[in-house]
Amino acid sequence: MHENEQQIEKLAVIGTGVIGNGWITRFLAKGYDVVAFDPAEGAEERTHQSIKRAWESMEKIGLADGASPDRLTFVPTVEEAVQDAYLIQENVPEREDLKKSVLESIDQFAKPDAIIGSSTSGIKPSTLQKNLKHPERLLVAHPFNPVHILPLVELVGGESTEQTIINQAVKFYESIHMKPLVVQKEIEGHVADRLMEALWREALHIVNDGIATTEEVDAAIVYGAGLRWAQMGPFLTFHLAGGEQGMRHMLEQFGPALKLPWTKLEAPELTDELKEKVVEGCETHAGDKSVAELEDKRDEFLVKLLDLVEEYWPESKGIATSEK
Amino acid sequence: MHENEQQIEKLAVIGTGVIGNGWITRFLAKGYDVVAFDPAEGAEERTHQSIKRAWESMEKIGLADGASPDRLTFVPTVEEAVQDAYLIQENVPEREDLKKSVLESIDQFAKPDAIIGSSTSGIKPSTLQKNLKHPERLLVAHPFNPVHILPLVELVGGESTEQTIINQAVKFYESIHMKPLVVQKEIEGHVADRLMEALWREALHIVNDGIATTEEVDAAIVYGAGLRWAQMGPFLTFHLAGGEQGMRHMLEQFGPALKLPWTKLEAPELTDELKEKVVEGCETHAGDKSVAELEDKRDEFLVKLLDLVEEYWPESKGIATSEK
Repeated sequence: MHENEQQIEKLAVIGTGVIGNGWITRFLAKGYDVVAFDPAEGAEERTHQSIKRAWESMEKIGLADGASPDRLTFVPTVEEAVQDAYLIQENVPEREDLKKSVLESIDQFAKPDAIIGSSTSGIKPSTLQKNLKHPERLLVAHPFNPVHILPLVELVGGESTEQTIINQAVKFYESIHMKPLVVQKEIEGHVADRLMEALWREALHIVNDGIATTEEVDAAIVYGAGLRWAQMGPFLTFHLAGGEQGMRHMLEQFGPALKLPWTKLEAPELTDELKEKVVEGCETHAGDKSVAELEDKRDEFLVKLLDLVEEYWPESKGIATSEK
Repeated sequence: MHENEQQIEKLAVIGTGVIGNGWITRFLAKGYDVVAFDPAEGAEERTHQSIKRAWESMEKIGLADGASPDRLTFVPTVEEAVQDAYLIQENVPEREDLKKSVLESIDQFAKPDAIIGSSTSGIKPSTLQKNLKHPERLLVAHPFNPVHILPLVELVGGESTEQTIINQAVKFYESIHMKPLVVQKEIEGHVADRLMEALWREALHIVNDGIATTEEVDAAIVYGAGLRWAQMGPFLTFHLAGGEQGMRHMLEQFGPALKLPWTKLEAPELTDELKEKVVEGCETHAGDKSVAELEDKRDEFLVKLLDLVEEYWPESKGIATSEK
């Protein structure tokens, strides 16, 4: 699928929480050797458990020749992890100072032409690359949970990122069956998280104001817009709601409603009372199922849903291709 | 499914645009006689076309015994439409004065114990019921496009609405295979549209600021959160992102980020330039497909997706039942 395939000897993953483990699983399933580093106690064992649980989904999606969980190695230092890696995926906790210091270590020991992808959900790449020796090869490569299944990855270059690195990253992430979305301007939160954040704040207000419970808010998404959003985003959805004239009619008819003071403008205070409402709501909704059981069920569902989306929405493949 | 089934002789639909036609199709597929009224020229013909296109989906979902498109009658007055109707679904354009005047006519001619459901997406039921003779039987029953397939219906009572009417409405909408969400307090936009509106405004800002195109914003939803939202809303999604501690851990870790000034607080001005960006973006995304072709494809997809959701998310059935 891309000309560099032969050159990719190994991939490095730094930080093996939920996101790091998702990357490891995806890389392994695509037939790569992966080297991982995480200083937390028990990290290696948790990663193996996580791969084991996800592997059935990966088999359904389709494994590359020679793909195996055995091709993962944990090493005790960043240096050993990143040396000789074609691409290094950074997934340490979302704190600017920590990310910067880990990225500086990676930068110090990585090959000069290695790609460094940060999984940061909110920090701008220009901020992250400031003190690097080779800032031109750092970009944001922000995935979505569960990373081993969801195709979206936002690619964002900073002031110093070279276009060739972004092009190379697009090819690489496409080769592991992702849909890279190259974000044109860097902003905090990139694109997808800003959209989710807007909805999330409104959801908290609704619960805080006693309009609906967390489970009811979730149902209001799942049984309405959520079913549509698995196939069409907000724009195409409204294009279809406008009749034969599509979006043009829609904007003329509903444009003025934009100014209605519906949505709350500020996030509600996260009081203990609101926290309890939210936590208890989720625990009730989850019933007697652990988070792990819910995850397994989600993954099974998503694997089947992905097939459906592919079957019914081939047009969407147009968003980002290496030809672009 | 509910004890009133025998008493339901017919259902009335007032206003046959996209939403009214969706209701008619759903009612007919569930084996009811439907009487419709719409003063617009060509309305009856458009409704028949719309039913014809949707019927294949209804067959896949499952028709009730005796269900037939032939059991629809158009009549020339509101009076003839609503007399003897068990339930009257109002779907005239979203203008307060128009809705109020049409609801007053319905109120004048309907049986005293008929249920009047308004499809309004934004107006509070207390506002709509103010001048009615029998305000106690008016409630908001807000569906989602495509109405013949999507299960969500928001039920909202106003100050004068009787609880027995709400209970009866829950039973009725459940009997036509919907998921009624009884909203606890009336607010403009109810629940689902407030959530969608929050996301929609942010989406317009992103396009307006040149961060991404409409097609890219749509892709950022479809290939990320959208796939998840077909099965889990924002709360349960975050419950799973928090690891074994679920939402409790999540709120402790990410709570502070709530206050970050990520989302834009006001809707952007709908300038001609922004309008063009949005309209052209949608037309490009739609390719050579007409809105009608996109609708057919969407419906086919949604019918299959609904089966998947039912299979994998039975817990969600808990949100609203007639036992509650």
